[in-house]
Amino acid sequence: MMDPAATLFTTPEMAEVFSGSAQVERMLAFEAALARALARAELIPEDAARAIEDACDVDGFDIDALYREAALAGTPAIPLVRMLTARVPEEARRYVHRGATSQDVIDTAMAGGMQWGIENILGDLLEFGEICAGLAERYRRTPMAGRTLLQQATPITFGLKAARWLSLVTRSIERLGAQRYQLGVVQFGGAVGNLAALGISGLRVAELLADELGVDLPELPWHAERDRVAEAAGMLAIVAGSMGKIATDIVLLAQTEVREVTEASAPGKGGSSTLPHKQNPVDATFALAAAKLAIGTAPVLFNSMLQEHERSVGSWQAEWSAIPALFGYTHCAVSRTMSAVTGLVVDEDRMRANLDLDHGLLMAESLSSALARSVGRDVAQRIVKRVSSEVSSSGTTLRIAAMRDAEIRTTLGEDDIERALDPLNYLGSNDILIDRALASFRGIR
Amino acid sequence: MMDPAATLFTTPEMAEVFSGSAQVERMLAFEAALARALARAELIPEDAARAIEDACDVDGFDIDALYREAALAGTPAIPLVRMLTARVPEEARRYVHRGATSQDVIDTAMAGGMQWGIENILGDLLEFGEICAGLAERYRRTPMAGRTLLQQATPITFGLKAARWLSLVTRSIERLGAQRYQLGVVQFGGAVGNLAALGISGLRVAELLADELGVDLPELPWHAERDRVAEAAGMLAIVAGSMGKIATDIVLLAQTEVREVTEASAPGKGGSSTLPHKQNPVDATFALAAAKLAIGTAPVLFNSMLQEHERSVGSWQAEWSAIPALFGYTHCAVSRTMSAVTGLVVDEDRMRANLDLDHGLLMAESLSSALARSVGRDVAQRIVKRVSSEVSSSGTTLRIAAMRDAEIRTTLGEDDIERALDPLNYLGSNDILIDRALASFRGIR
Amino acid sequence: MMDPAATLFTTPEMAEVFSGSAQVERMLAFEAALARALARAELIPEDAARAIEDACDVDGFDIDALYREAALAGTPAIPLVRMLTARVPEEARRYVHRGATSQDVIDTAMAGGMQWGIENILGDLLEFGEICAGLAERYRRTPMAGRTLLQQATPITFGLKAARWLSLVTRSIERLGAQRYQLGVVQFGGAVGNLAALGISGLRVAELLADELGVDLPELPWHAERDRVAEAAGMLAIVAGSMGKIATDIVLLAQTEVREVTEASAPGKGGSSTLPHKQNPVDATFALAAAKLAIGTAPVLFNSMLQEHERSVGSWQAEWSAIPALFGYTHCAVSRTMSAVTGLVVDEDRMRANLDLDHGLLMAESLSSALARSVGRDVAQRIVKRVSSEVSSSGTTLRIAAMRDAEIRTTLGEDDIERALDPLNYLGSNDILIDRALASFRGIR
Amino acid sequence: MMDPAATLFTTPEMAEVFSGSAQVERMLAFEAALARALARAELIPEDAARAIEDACDVDGFDIDALYREAALAGTPAIPLVRMLTARVPEEARRYVHRGATSQDVIDTAMAGGMQWGIENILGDLLEFGEICAGLAERYRRTPMAGRTLLQQATPITFGLKAARWLSLVTRSIERLGAQRYQLGVVQFGGAVGNLAALGISGLRVAELLADELGVDLPELPWHAERDRVAEAAGMLAIVAGSMGKIATDIVLLAQTEVREVTEASAPGKGGSSTLPHKQNPVDATFALAAAKLAIGTAPVLFNSMLQEHERSVGSWQAEWSAIPALFGYTHCAVSRTMSAVTGLVVDEDRMRANLDLDHGLLMAESLSSALARSVGRDVAQRIVKRVSSEVSSSGTTLRIAAMRDAEIRTTLGEDDIERALDPLNYLGSNDILIDRALASFRGIR
Repeated sequence: MMDPAATLFTTPEMAEVFSGSAQVERMLAFEAALARALARAELIPEDAARAIEDACDVDGFDIDALYREAALAGTPAIPLVRMLTARVPEEARRYVHRGATSQDVIDTAMAGGMQWGIENILGDLLEFGEICAGLAERYRRTPMAGRTLLQQATPITFGLKAARWLSLVTRSIERLGAQRYQLGVVQFGGAVGNLAALGISGLRVAELLADELGVDLPELPWHAERDRVAEAAGMLAIVAGSMGKIATDIVLLAQTEVREVTEASAPGKGGSSTLPHKQNPVDATFALAAAKLAIGTAPVLFNSMLQEHERSVGSWQAEWSAIPALFGYTHCAVSRTMSAVTGLVVDEDRMRANLDLDHGLLMAESLSSALARSVGRDVAQRIVKRVSSEVSSSGTTLRIAAMRDAEIRTTLGEDDIERALDPLNYLGSNDILIDRALASFRGIR
Repeated sequence: MMDPAATLFTTPEMAEVFSGSAQVERMLAFEAALARALARAELIPEDAARAIEDACDVDGFDIDALYREAALAGTPAIPLVRMLTARVPEEARRYVHRGATSQDVIDTAMAGGMQWGIENILGDLLEFGEICAGLAERYRRTPMAGRTLLQQATPITFGLKAARWLSLVTRSIERLGAQRYQLGVVQFGGAVGNLAALGISGLRVAELLADELGVDLPELPWHAERDRVAEAAGMLAIVAGSMGKIATDIVLLAQTEVREVTEASAPGKGGSSTLPHKQNPVDATFALAAAKLAIGTAPVLFNSMLQEHERSVGSWQAEWSAIPALFGYTHCAVSRTMSAVTGLVVDEDRMRANLDLDHGLLMAESLSSALARSVGRDVAQRIVKRVSSEVSSSGTTLRIAAMRDAEIRTTLGEDDIERALDPLNYLGSNDILIDRALASFRGIR
Repeated sequence: MMDPAATLFTTPEMAEVFSGSAQVERMLAFEAALARALARAELIPEDAARAIEDACDVDGFDIDALYREAALAGTPAIPLVRMLTARVPEEARRYVHRGATSQDVIDTAMAGGMQWGIENILGDLLEFGEICAGLAERYRRTPMAGRTLLQQATPITFGLKAARWLSLVTRSIERLGAQRYQLGVVQFGGAVGNLAALGISGLRVAELLADELGVDLPELPWHAERDRVAEAAGMLAIVAGSMGKIATDIVLLAQTEVREVTEASAPGKGGSSTLPHKQNPVDATFALAAAKLAIGTAPVLFNSMLQEHERSVGSWQAEWSAIPALFGYTHCAVSRTMSAVTGLVVDEDRMRANLDLDHGLLMAESLSSALARSVGRDVAQRIVKRVSSEVSSSGTTLRIAAMRDAEIRTTLGEDDIERALDPLNYLGSNDILIDRALASFRGIR
Repeated sequence: MMDPAATLFTTPEMAEVFSGSAQVERMLAFEAALARALARAELIPEDAARAIEDACDVDGFDIDALYREAALAGTPAIPLVRMLTARVPEEARRYVHRGATSQDVIDTAMAGGMQWGIENILGDLLEFGEICAGLAERYRRTPMAGRTLLQQATPITFGLKAARWLSLVTRSIERLGAQRYQLGVVQFGGAVGNLAALGISGLRVAELLADELGVDLPELPWHAERDRVAEAAGMLAIVAGSMGKIATDIVLLAQTEVREVTEASAPGKGGSSTLPHKQNPVDATFALAAAKLAIGTAPVLFNSMLQEHERSVGSWQAEWSAIPALFGYTHCAVSRTMSAVTGLVVDEDRMRANLDLDHGLLMAESLSSALARSVGRDVAQRIVKRVSSEVSSSGTTLRIAAMRDAEIRTTLGEDDIERALDPLNYLGSNDILIDRALASFRGIR
């Protein structure tokens, strides 16, 4: 029995994409397409092609036996071809797998799986983008503390934070969209990458094969040049990392001492085994775990680039485990970050209240700016620094201290001070930035 | 369905150790031991403890349902406790899981799994050590080229190479032996690590619990201090890397151009789908892939050390996937390296022949040493350099050139030259080093 | 004194790009451009802008002191602004750094450095591409063994191998070209990313600032969304990995037992301290080391994506060390791989000779194909398998065995056999593939 | 000029340990010790040994030139031996470096540097342990919120948190102490690891060399078996990660909304370039960055274990950059975490106040325990759950709600309730756990 804990960090969709039957199905699709391509190139009889295609039915294959043999044979393609050949009528057997090598089948199937995997993730990301866009619009004027180095700095809005999340989603969609396209390639080189077994017809068959599969023919076979795989791995890790950034924001905002957001509650969700009053941010927690796991998996595929000669001894094989793992982790990160954000309970009052936590000092810069218009920046900063010190030592608030301060009151009236201390009046380019993020997302739909 | 390709990079033993039922069984063992410990501490009735223990039978649990709930609840311990409680008679329910937190159960179970996993690996390593020791003895005087930066340098013996492999195995055993011991610890801290729910009896229960489980009680609970886990991860990666070094040697020695070793052939093993004459080093290939995957997994557990406060949000959870993966990869690396070495076909003739590949220049240093005894090192080096150049440019061999060289012949007779060019006479401390490696291995048995 | 060993794994160009003075110069360029932008937006006086610009002369700054202060202050921008302000006339001081935060200065400067670094690497890659293209053309019909899993399989040409190297270079150029463009962005968000201190003029100033610096204004500030940095890191690692693949081929081909290529010799290059006849592949060795170091550095920048709120505590700062290191390693990998390839001594005779190493069995597939045209594939394979076994057991060659074999001779004449065993007649799509690689490279020039 | 930003993530001590002059000095110490050992073994004249020793004065070497040559030669040992030989009188030249290979010199020197580096780190850790121990004692009864998944759970004390930090320091000391011992080894194998050039005297010279250097002679040379280096790397990364955990706690506790600790302020420390009232946790920030960089560097040294044959092509060389980097990052992490903790301003009032943040619900478990003694656990939990809900919905506190609750008041008096809600009465094994951590630390001194 496989480790069920592993299911916590993947998704049903991704488990399906890289399941044994799905992988064998894609390998069989390659073999069938190859037979058709060979027939179109008049290298094998039409009848033989049809017979091979008929035999390429995944239900006729014992997947577990196939992978058991693979451990000995070195690749799953070897038992696949053996089993397929046995299912083909005598006279067509010689035409099975003609001109191809194990890696041709496996890489083409894996690239297809990666494309399918990306489509699943893209579907979620598009939905997730809508959710972020909704938050950005809805909370566009909801002030909250901006925080740098985990210290409150000056106000932002929750809408702007959501817009930044949205921009991560937008760029994730762009990155994966590009990868989906780039992975739409066949692998077809024969034993050493020159299609020698097909004589002068190699490239013609390659073109027909790509056509049959509905993918592109790359400039060269890529048996030992794995930059394509490493790039896809890097991009998936970046998508996972983008989710991890959003999840980081959520768990920090959900802290008891901050509690500006809470994950939606549901029966059986997020409770503690010992502390009934606790509401844990379960989705964001799993999202973070999955993001770390995804990021941790990508380097295997970077290190695997240093391959030997025409086909590698070990580095290529490591991909078979790392790629499905990476897809599972990444999709889990996307899916659970989306869950966390989808039902997010946003406490606008708490956001507002937290702005006053630091005696209102968060607005000191704003007050200084207001003063600066009359007395210049240096004087303004000197005054505000003095008043801020009083606030810090006496425990009063900036509002009270400012109202009472003689030097400030020579310049600013009560209303001026109120205006200067209202976070909504110190948001700079907040709205236009939100609009820019929304427009970018709309632009890729 | 899970990815069957994943089975290529683990072992049946490791799949069992971290299977859902094994993990749930270990968690139930914790709950049962806790009940007994609480009873021994007179905190709960004997009867209740017995009732809980009776209910801790893994066959009564729906493992898949448990892990499905875990995804929502945040940990598998929450549904486990819920299911366990439901199986316990009404009057004993209140005593289930008393004083413990989810992480106590999960970490103790995981540490137990890691111990069991290590025992499996150790068993193989001890067997593997014997095989290496056998090779070191048997090929103690079998000369082969020593190679540095992939260039032939001066001769070694295959026995010395095997002795170096043995020393890696010996140290792997020592490292894992230490880890098996260090992982023999209970995790027991309650919600925040101070056992508050057990009042003044916490440490007493902890001691009894450790006693019941037959493990040690660490100085402090280690909920968020994961150096212990990171150390185990590092050591497993080092074991996998040690295997990777051996596998690297094998694939290099098995190259067509070197072919000093071949993996044992077996029906269905190592053939090529297109090239019937090829014999691929399949075991070493998978060993290399698994070693790279293991090494790639460890950093996740190093990065996971930066945990928040009393229990972490994401980093701890990532361990649940990374630890079983790491064990599977590492055991696969050990098991397949051992397979590769066990049946290794050693071609002593080819080793000897390869020593002559470079026109015998491999023995130039030896010849120089022989000359140096009479004419001094500087003169000897000058002479040998000159003769070596002649060899390189003319294509003759060092033997012929030396025999013909007037300057050499004033010092060395034919027999002297033969002796100087015999690799067996230029092995330095070969035998004593092999003996040292054997003694170290025997010492740990 | 810094570790001089570090200089072995970078380049003088990259050391210059990320030197303290170059970084401070770029930061000052930001401050000067900001002053001009503020003046153009009529937010500060023209004179003040000019005064600030005049003070932005790197020669007036004590770089070492600046970085010493940075360790205490938290960022180099804080002492930079302090020092710059001190150099500006009293009346202009208040306008220094207005609206900006430390990270604005540092990120913009770093992005500029990354662009410059990429330009350096691109320059080398373009040159390197020409060299690979030259090899692909020159050795287009030079047969050598194709090798899979380090076993000889069927022949390729050295030209095709060089074409595959070229394709890695071509894609490296495309990747870095895209990154150079994407890194052409300003960072400008003020304390929390909304440009609050500039009121309603924030975006206008941002646009003018980007215009002054000649870079783009991204949709949003990217203080805590580091996907852009992670992507650049990933692409650099992929470039380094691509070089590592080429270097792997070189060290394998340069093995004593293969010796189909040798690195160009030079006085003081590649000798051994003890073995005068050895010629080590020094450039490829350093290239491999640098590639591994580059690949090892990228994950830091992936893990760093999980940043807190508006600006991060630790992850951002880690970039300051990881980015220059990654650039140094990557450029070293490019530069030394190029050195290795540039002077590569290619031994065509040895390539040809190695093809016969395995008793000519490398051509068994070709012979089988020739036979198959008359007797069908199955019969042909059966015959060749039998003959190959004889070859393996008797130690003769495939040529001799084929000539003597009655069953073969009923079908093929002497000339047919010779033709079938000539590697040049079994290269499949060799030429067209080389042409495709050359065309791709020419296409990006 | 080298990147001065790099100085932010190392320490002056570590820069010195791995400086060019220190490394050359250690290499010269090897050459001098080798000469003495050869003389003691009567393989070279006493005079020659003395002459070589005299020439081994680092001041006579041009370090920069040496490393420039190294880039071409392949290792710094080659120019070192060349330069050293030139400094030795004619008659002794032949005895320089006898029997050794470049890697012998470099590895022995590097191991010595690593030992010295570890001593530096250990010195700081011992001091740091005292500081943590002081905090553990001083704040042993200072209650604060225990936090799991960033949610307040039940109370702990700051003393227990400091005790957990202490336990990380204690184990870091143990780990590095073990490494310091293990790295006390010579590397001495000659060209291929069998000391061939020294004939039958090899091991005798090796023993004398180890004796001269005051280190151990390992069982075998370890040119290509790098588990020793990988283990040291792993342990350093774990030490850095342990520091990262402490720094994580600090930045979280220093958040504006929590502010239970603040880093000591100092002139120029931790200010913001735009926000004068901010006090950034600068030491913890750099500690986190350095910890992440250290953890990121270790995998290079794990991946480097897969070395070729007797000496590696690339993987070994990568160590020269990775090891000094790892030491610099790790020491920086230790040093800055220690700085952060040393001056830490602990706000006990705020800790106490934060305990009440969640309407006092943090004490619900304690109240439930108190009730359970009379009414049983189930009833108690039911009551407390009801009361907690009222608290959550009404906004009152647990204290007020409990006092008013009829069902509770039938069981508990006012004093009972007060006692149950006092965090100091719900600390479980707090004191004994602190004592255990202190005892462990005292035990290793």
